[in-house]
Amino acid sequence: MTRATRSPQGRLLYAQSGGVTSVINATAAGVIEAARAKGVPVYAARNGILGALREDLIDTTKETRSAIAALRHTPGGAFGSCRYKLKSLEANRAEYERLIEVFRAHDIRWFLYNGGNDSADTALKVSQLGKAMGYDIRCIGVPKTVDNDLAITDCCPGFGSVAKYTAVSTLEASLDVASMAETSTKVFILEVMGRHAGWIAAAAGLAGDGVDGAPHVILFPEVPFDEAAFLAKVKATVERVGWCTVVASEGVRNAQGQFLAEAGTRDAFGHTQLGGAAPVLAQLVKDKLGYKYHWALPDYLQRSARHAASKVDAEQAYAVGKAAVDCALAGMNAVMPVIVRTSDAPYRWKVEPAPLAKIANKEKKMPKGFIRRDGFGITAAARRYLSPLIAGEAPLPWRRDGLPAYGTLRLASVARRLPPKQE
Amino acid sequence: MTRATRSPQGRLLYAQSGGVTSVINATAAGVIEAARAKGVPVYAARNGILGALREDLIDTTKETRSAIAALRHTPGGAFGSCRYKLKSLEANRAEYERLIEVFRAHDIRWFLYNGGNDSADTALKVSQLGKAMGYDIRCIGVPKTVDNDLAITDCCPGFGSVAKYTAVSTLEASLDVASMAETSTKVFILEVMGRHAGWIAAAAGLAGDGVDGAPHVILFPEVPFDEAAFLAKVKATVERVGWCTVVASEGVRNAQGQFLAEAGTRDAFGHTQLGGAAPVLAQLVKDKLGYKYHWALPDYLQRSARHAASKVDAEQAYAVGKAAVDCALAGMNAVMPVIVRTSDAPYRWKVEPAPLAKIANKEKKMPKGFIRRDGFGITAAARRYLSPLIAGEAPLPWRRDGLPAYGTLRLASVARRLPPKQE
Repeated sequence: MTRATRSPQGRLLYAQSGGVTSVINATAAGVIEAARAKGVPVYAARNGILGALREDLIDTTKETRSAIAALRHTPGGAFGSCRYKLKSLEANRAEYERLIEVFRAHDIRWFLYNGGNDSADTALKVSQLGKAMGYDIRCIGVPKTVDNDLAITDCCPGFGSVAKYTAVSTLEASLDVASMAETSTKVFILEVMGRHAGWIAAAAGLAGDGVDGAPHVILFPEVPFDEAAFLAKVKATVERVGWCTVVASEGVRNAQGQFLAEAGTRDAFGHTQLGGAAPVLAQLVKDKLGYKYHWALPDYLQRSARHAASKVDAEQAYAVGKAAVDCALAGMNAVMPVIVRTSDAPYRWKVEPAPLAKIANKEKKMPKGFIRRDGFGITAAARRYLSPLIAGEAPLPWRRDGLPAYGTLRLASVARRLPPKQE
Repeated sequence: MTRATRSPQGRLLYAQSGGVTSVINATAAGVIEAARAKGVPVYAARNGILGALREDLIDTTKETRSAIAALRHTPGGAFGSCRYKLKSLEANRAEYERLIEVFRAHDIRWFLYNGGNDSADTALKVSQLGKAMGYDIRCIGVPKTVDNDLAITDCCPGFGSVAKYTAVSTLEASLDVASMAETSTKVFILEVMGRHAGWIAAAAGLAGDGVDGAPHVILFPEVPFDEAAFLAKVKATVERVGWCTVVASEGVRNAQGQFLAEAGTRDAFGHTQLGGAAPVLAQLVKDKLGYKYHWALPDYLQRSARHAASKVDAEQAYAVGKAAVDCALAGMNAVMPVIVRTSDAPYRWKVEPAPLAKIANKEKKMPKGFIRRDGFGITAAARRYLSPLIAGEAPLPWRRDGLPAYGTLRLASVARRLPPKQE
């Protein structure tokens, strides 16, 4: 890529989008440190694209070097994120005109949008504004999602760490269950994220060691839930091993395509309980097999657990941020730096730009070859793909009081230059 | 304490009891390494006292030095635990006679029982058998419980680590919620263990920093749930901070003394869902305040998370194991080595024997002075007590594949010398 010999003109705007991860701030650190090295000032939009629309901008040049460095090990989204999808240019031209207005007012020449599928779509639309509205803006998508469902890229920053958290937690909880099974819990059910794809549940399979290693049953959204087969598998496992660990995706559905989480439990008011496939499965085990059960639902704990992050994931998160700046300053537009795997063992990877048009709104499913034929576990191919992504631990500074030394920013607001947007 | 100049005669029997922790095996390592140093062979009972009753014994002399050392960082109960309470000597004399029979058959002269309140009671009863049945057996209780509710001891091995896990998880998940609150989840509810005492929920309070630091609301079993006050506190927090983190003990009860977990959700079959105070609170928040919610229930993950263990806790767990052997070989009986705090800042502690009679069946509640007057948080006194217990990280060897290098034992069975017990 070309390197600017003197500082390019204009500012770079960075925004975080969608569900955050334990390493998205490492990407922010990669962006800001790379831009600083090139003498390019970085603004951040508060709460993602909303901050851009509202002219609610943060001046990162007011942050100390150490504050930016601390982002590299701080979970959550330091600048705020949002779930907000821009409509098409035709459907809501005013919104795009407002964006350009804000960009122009603050001399924003590069826009880096850090998110998943929807965000890639937004980034692609913004990248086309230059021609459509006569303002020179380069737009780069930056990958992030624990769902690991972005197209083209070999994996998504954020996934490796939730995968490691899930595999480690499955291993630890199973050691607990194994020691209590004689007189207590025989079936333990761990519900993990994954509404449409079973990537995170699959990662739990990495904890498994040998034919009877936990988890003994994995339930994927890709495999319609077969109650009889599930109960038979759990019963056989308890009778052979003495206990059974089940890992279930939140998105596991019955044959009618209905989420188990919605099919089962209702609260006192008759509402269905969301995020509750585990209690439904647990009740099923108790009613049909009579085994004592326990279930866990880590929810946000799994995607914010920076204390258990994967070294590979943290490094890739930083690398895509730095690469996004390189792409932008090299004059590229409508691309996303993605992870390219060049070798499984030893694991080797590099970052290369890919066209946003090939990524926006696409969803990468798990390959069929990753799910065992019986539908309850992962294959050797899945292990080859997943294992390198949880390798290594990501160092974390700890405070003397026993808590992680997570960073905080000043988040100095940029003075507004425009009248407020009508929302 | 006296030191034996030559190896004492007889064997030492060690057993784990009740719910396991992420550091109970560190206690086992302390016991076995201390006994080996004195030339005393250690048997372990498989699945706690049941193994003793069934003459199902494990010969730890068959384990390598490195395998025993690995116990120090391996969660779960390596020899198996159980929930089984011996009746009184009057009520079930046969069971005690069987114990003595097994002790006699294997020349067991010292019995170390590693558990909580019930186990201390069992240990006390066994300690009295010597007189009652004319067999010389010394019995030592060894403290363990994540509930932190044992009398006399300043804290309980196992609690510090679940406390650290809970504080770290509360901090991390709150960073996630804070960054999403503008357009997504406004109220996050974390349900933690603690059926009768709010020690673990209180530890979440250590994550709090300043008046608006998360967690904003803590619900203790000690404080009857006041729906109106809870909703008002949540509403005020969301309006001021933008979001709200709630940490709830599984044992939180309404004014009628009924568990929230049982008051609310019912499954499709009409059964109440246990371990579900969080979904009940979440539904309440949604119905009465209309806020988007998420909830987490880490269950066994919290008490098996050796990867996030407290250094102080791991050291104390090892120390009570070693001290128990010292007590036993010094000829003591019916005692438990407990943690004595000699200074808050800097935190200093030592281990001293205490009479089992003062510990058995007693339950230590949280001091009233640890709960804030409004009932939704912890006091400075609670912080002074809790903070040192989560200090420091406990080193853990990791495998190249990114998982913790937890140990495994051979668990070689001791040849039976008696006819099987009628159960």
